[in-house]
Amino acid sequence: MISVSTKFERPDAVVVEQLRAFSSATIHEAQGRLGALDSAIKPVDHRMSLCGPAFPVQCAPRDNLMLQTAIAYARPGDVIVVSAGAYEEAGSFGDVLANACQAKGLGGLVTDTGVRDTEDLRALGFPVFSRSVCIKGTVKETVGPMCEPVTVGGVLVRPGDVVRADADGVVVVRREDAAQVAAASKERVNAEAGYIAAYRAGRTVTEVCGLAPLLAAKGLVIED
Amino acid sequence: MISVSTKFERPDAVVVEQLRAFSSATIHEAQGRLGALDSAIKPVDHRMSLCGPAFPVQCAPRDNLMLQTAIAYARPGDVIVVSAGAYEEAGSFGDVLANACQAKGLGGLVTDTGVRDTEDLRALGFPVFSRSVCIKGTVKETVGPMCEPVTVGGVLVRPGDVVRADADGVVVVRREDAAQVAAASKERVNAEAGYIAAYRAGRTVTEVCGLAPLLAAKGLVIED
Amino acid sequence: MISVSTKFERPDAVVVEQLRAFSSATIHEAQGRLGALDSAIKPVDHRMSLCGPAFPVQCAPRDNLMLQTAIAYARPGDVIVVSAGAYEEAGSFGDVLANACQAKGLGGLVTDTGVRDTEDLRALGFPVFSRSVCIKGTVKETVGPMCEPVTVGGVLVRPGDVVRADADGVVVVRREDAAQVAAASKERVNAEAGYIAAYRAGRTVTEVCGLAPLLAAKGLVIED
Amino acid sequence: MISVSTKFERPDAVVVEQLRAFSSATIHEAQGRLGALDSAIKPVDHRMSLCGPAFPVQCAPRDNLMLQTAIAYARPGDVIVVSAGAYEEAGSFGDVLANACQAKGLGGLVTDTGVRDTEDLRALGFPVFSRSVCIKGTVKETVGPMCEPVTVGGVLVRPGDVVRADADGVVVVRREDAAQVAAASKERVNAEAGYIAAYRAGRTVTEVCGLAPLLAAKGLVIED
Amino acid sequence: MISVSTKFERPDAVVVEQLRAFSSATIHEAQGRLGALDSAIKPVDHRMSLCGPAFPVQCAPRDNLMLQTAIAYARPGDVIVVSAGAYEEAGSFGDVLANACQAKGLGGLVTDTGVRDTEDLRALGFPVFSRSVCIKGTVKETVGPMCEPVTVGGVLVRPGDVVRADADGVVVVRREDAAQVAAASKERVNAEAGYIAAYRAGRTVTEVCGLAPLLAAKGLVIED
Amino acid sequence: MISVSTKFERPDAVVVEQLRAFSSATIHEAQGRLGALDSAIKPVDHRMSLCGPAFPVQCAPRDNLMLQTAIAYARPGDVIVVSAGAYEEAGSFGDVLANACQAKGLGGLVTDTGVRDTEDLRALGFPVFSRSVCIKGTVKETVGPMCEPVTVGGVLVRPGDVVRADADGVVVVRREDAAQVAAASKERVNAEAGYIAAYRAGRTVTEVCGLAPLLAAKGLVIED
Repeated sequence: MISVSTKFERPDAVVVEQLRAFSSATIHEAQGRLGALDSAIKPVDHRMSLCGPAFPVQCAPRDNLMLQTAIAYARPGDVIVVSAGAYEEAGSFGDVLANACQAKGLGGLVTDTGVRDTEDLRALGFPVFSRSVCIKGTVKETVGPMCEPVTVGGVLVRPGDVVRADADGVVVVRREDAAQVAAASKERVNAEAGYIAAYRAGRTVTEVCGLAPLLAAKGLVIED
Repeated sequence: MISVSTKFERPDAVVVEQLRAFSSATIHEAQGRLGALDSAIKPVDHRMSLCGPAFPVQCAPRDNLMLQTAIAYARPGDVIVVSAGAYEEAGSFGDVLANACQAKGLGGLVTDTGVRDTEDLRALGFPVFSRSVCIKGTVKETVGPMCEPVTVGGVLVRPGDVVRADADGVVVVRREDAAQVAAASKERVNAEAGYIAAYRAGRTVTEVCGLAPLLAAKGLVIED
Repeated sequence: MISVSTKFERPDAVVVEQLRAFSSATIHEAQGRLGALDSAIKPVDHRMSLCGPAFPVQCAPRDNLMLQTAIAYARPGDVIVVSAGAYEEAGSFGDVLANACQAKGLGGLVTDTGVRDTEDLRALGFPVFSRSVCIKGTVKETVGPMCEPVTVGGVLVRPGDVVRADADGVVVVRREDAAQVAAASKERVNAEAGYIAAYRAGRTVTEVCGLAPLLAAKGLVIED
Repeated sequence: MISVSTKFERPDAVVVEQLRAFSSATIHEAQGRLGALDSAIKPVDHRMSLCGPAFPVQCAPRDNLMLQTAIAYARPGDVIVVSAGAYEEAGSFGDVLANACQAKGLGGLVTDTGVRDTEDLRALGFPVFSRSVCIKGTVKETVGPMCEPVTVGGVLVRPGDVVRADADGVVVVRREDAAQVAAASKERVNAEAGYIAAYRAGRTVTEVCGLAPLLAAKGLVIED
Repeated sequence: MISVSTKFERPDAVVVEQLRAFSSATIHEAQGRLGALDSAIKPVDHRMSLCGPAFPVQCAPRDNLMLQTAIAYARPGDVIVVSAGAYEEAGSFGDVLANACQAKGLGGLVTDTGVRDTEDLRALGFPVFSRSVCIKGTVKETVGPMCEPVTVGGVLVRPGDVVRADADGVVVVRREDAAQVAAASKERVNAEAGYIAAYRAGRTVTEVCGLAPLLAAKGLVIED
Repeated sequence: MISVSTKFERPDAVVVEQLRAFSSATIHEAQGRLGALDSAIKPVDHRMSLCGPAFPVQCAPRDNLMLQTAIAYARPGDVIVVSAGAYEEAGSFGDVLANACQAKGLGGLVTDTGVRDTEDLRALGFPVFSRSVCIKGTVKETVGPMCEPVTVGGVLVRPGDVVRADADGVVVVRREDAAQVAAASKERVNAEAGYIAAYRAGRTVTEVCGLAPLLAAKGLVIED
């Protein structure tokens, strides 16, 4: 017998919306280059993005019983995060379950295995990030942990951590760090806007990045 | 000397059109989760799809002599299915041969090696499914079997089997099973339409999938 | 101390524009099936293309110090070519540096590691070809050679060689061969236009490719 | 309901022993460079080798129910050939089943998924060829075809075909071709022994391989 | 500033020795098929094995500063477990550090990146499990967490968890479960010894595994 | 017509022997972490090693005509270095050619494609480093450059550069740097011997590597 509780603390909704305003890359940098999933986990379409509390679930490879269960228990806005053995040759999610998710108002799906019915997912606009697109069917045999920490794409994801994903990939922010990371992301975006403005105004990388003293200190001499 | 015959029985054209109405994933499920090629074989563009009788041919890796030969002998509607050693670093098909195929009215190409001139293929609208996009040229040196069974993406494909491919991947239906699989696909689509309607009407995964007794039988206790 | 000179001979600008008119696949064939990078190096978006003199630079994996330096010293029209250990799990270039490149009028970027901010790159229209899309940050620690030959995607790229890239991939033309390759590409395009016209006019692959004697010489007998 | 028959024609035992005398590479060449499985399927130890009639079975990935069933029905000398989706992250066979196989006098195992207890397999001397070594357990849920053709490592294997494997890899010979392939292998071995003797006697590659006219015909001029 | 504490609770030494008596595969099964690292993490030599408390450390890819630090702070018997981005192209550990480890009496090393000086490691007999063997050097630039949970090979490893590794791979047992898993492993080994004895005594898989009713229930009919 | 000259300057034989005394990893470090081939290129047996002047040759993938030609023209002690498209599924070299090499006194083979007859290679003791072991045969169709620079495993190899390979991998030293790299290797080996002696005498990593100030400077505080 496995006993699971679906109760966990979700992050502040305001902070989730703050994080949604920043790209996955910005957030990854702002929290000290942490929390990025393997780059093999990609959106079904580059226009998809999501941000919400993680609802983690562990599936056996090629088995989506616990993914169905997660859909049943997740709350509106939650992002279901599936760890399923990084198996590419299975399509564990498609248009039927996407309709179920959308009807419930779920925030999206991140999975380390495959999905299918991708044209339907595009049409629905339900954001899905997966390791592969694969038509091969799954079984519904194995129960496992839900709302407990899982590892996905080399990263630990805990219930209630914030998941942000876009065209570039997926990043996870620890719930307790979310407000601070949102603030640091804001600072980073402001700084980058300044750099971009400087470049557009004709300033050089050497100036903006302060390259000359850095290269000199490392012993690089450039004859131009 | 190798002797090949290009004569083989093609599937009923009505059944081919019936199968075209279903997605690759639906057909794969409807025939008992069989016939799906490796997910690495993908469309050049996600809007491409095809359905037709398989015209199989065996090429040596990085050699497209037999692919040219297959184009010469395939009939309108046929889908050329190339087994070429699953080699990614070769572009064995491009805009010139695509024009030849389209002029003959062929149904499409599925190959376990690479193709090129993909912007032209998009513009032509000729459906091509391949393991890679690669510009590296091929030779025309090696003869081999044609209109005999080949293995592609881990699946045996026989002359006259039905090949159905779309954004999600490629599935093969045995010619003798095609009518039955079309019927089973129809049933599956109807059932899924019912599930989707139920979700949109607000019913839950627990209800629609009958999760509660299944999870109880497997010993999962959920505290919500 | 490492000493580098940024002076090198660039190819004739007229020849660069001639090569830009041909696809990467055509150029690869026209120069004897040479110069194609590994097919894993792909455009961020299939509508991106570039053609220009190579400005090569060697980065340590997960380190973009020398890429920044290259942007500082490259000239308008140059294509920065980065060799960085073929490491997929790093995003070494994004929207800030893309703005720097575009402000300088650089011709594009080809790299054997990852990039990020891909939606911004699409919006900017700055052509980028990379092995991966990845949000993981890089460091700025290691100096290395610049404007010296590097190997990228299995190919040697020297300063001033011509780099041509499009939806299908990347090809490199040696500077001293550029004019001759442009001429050979023109011949090839003309020949292919003839083949395409022949197919559209209803001629067969057997005729156009002269298949019959070739297959007979190799001992293939076809019963049609 | 799935119905399978375990009856199939086995190859002549004398021919099997003839083929055992030749290496997998020799046999592959002798039958026209056919029948070689993907090189990823390797012996657990380079001293292992096997030769015998194929007893093919289809398993679901991460499921060894049908492998157990195959062991129950295979006959002494048979080589069990498992197609299980080319999944690396499962250990579907170990010391307990190896003892069962050895007690029955089976000829060995070739599988496109993983195995475990490899030190025990070495100690037992039971020859096993697999895609991976992996400790992850399997389930026993899914029935499937047995004693029907399967595809393994990109090759079709039919009941009663001859499987020969050694340190270099695995090759399959069609039952009806076995005697002829054994004869051709003998010829090839004899020819190669002559080449080796010639090299040891000081003759050159140029002489033995007749390189000079071949290179001249292809337009290679060598200044030595 | 990053602050780390090297204090954590280690598992009972008696239980560690109990677990050492069981193979990695047995332990993985005995704890419910959990805790197995990706099969790509392998011993440098198949005769290497280890068992001990995990001393986890996070390195940047291609950077072994924190690995050196971990060697400084780990205690006799500890197994250093390195998470370094699953990067194959770096050799982060060799004969010098192996001597440092052995002089301190450390229990071994498990890493998701590469190592080198493997002939020396064999001669020393210091057990090392890695994703690759690679000569490429690392830098010593980046500090990071130590004695905190890390993910390695898709598995969460916490300080003081028990790591057991042998020719087949690596498994991690949670410290609080170690005694129970040792007991369950003992039961499993006893049961398997019974199965092996039964096979050697001539009993069949059908009998020992109770195949007949299982297959019948799943609808498989076998004609023998 | 392709014209090649087999004349090139070889490195000083004394320096080659000096380099043979150092491991591939030591040499890689001693020359500033340069020249290491991809770790996928490995010895057929971990006891194999080689050191000698590079005799580079370019083959088409799955074609060993130019490898045969290289064996004909290489001189005693030379190491043939083959660039053949990094194709794993071809066995381009086996026992017959190994006998030809050994009869000529060649120094070994490094190739980015596959080889076969590995038990014979072990028995002969001829050192071979390859990307794969594969039985699949090659053709002899394509001529190409010889004794010109090639890229192998991501590294440029020029005629007469020194190739050193052992259990850990392969490194290339530029001919003009060979004497200096040998001297630097000697210094490194001496330094490492000192470190090892210090560890065996009970000194700590903290002392030997001077960790404390380094970590303090980077802001790591350790509570022990």
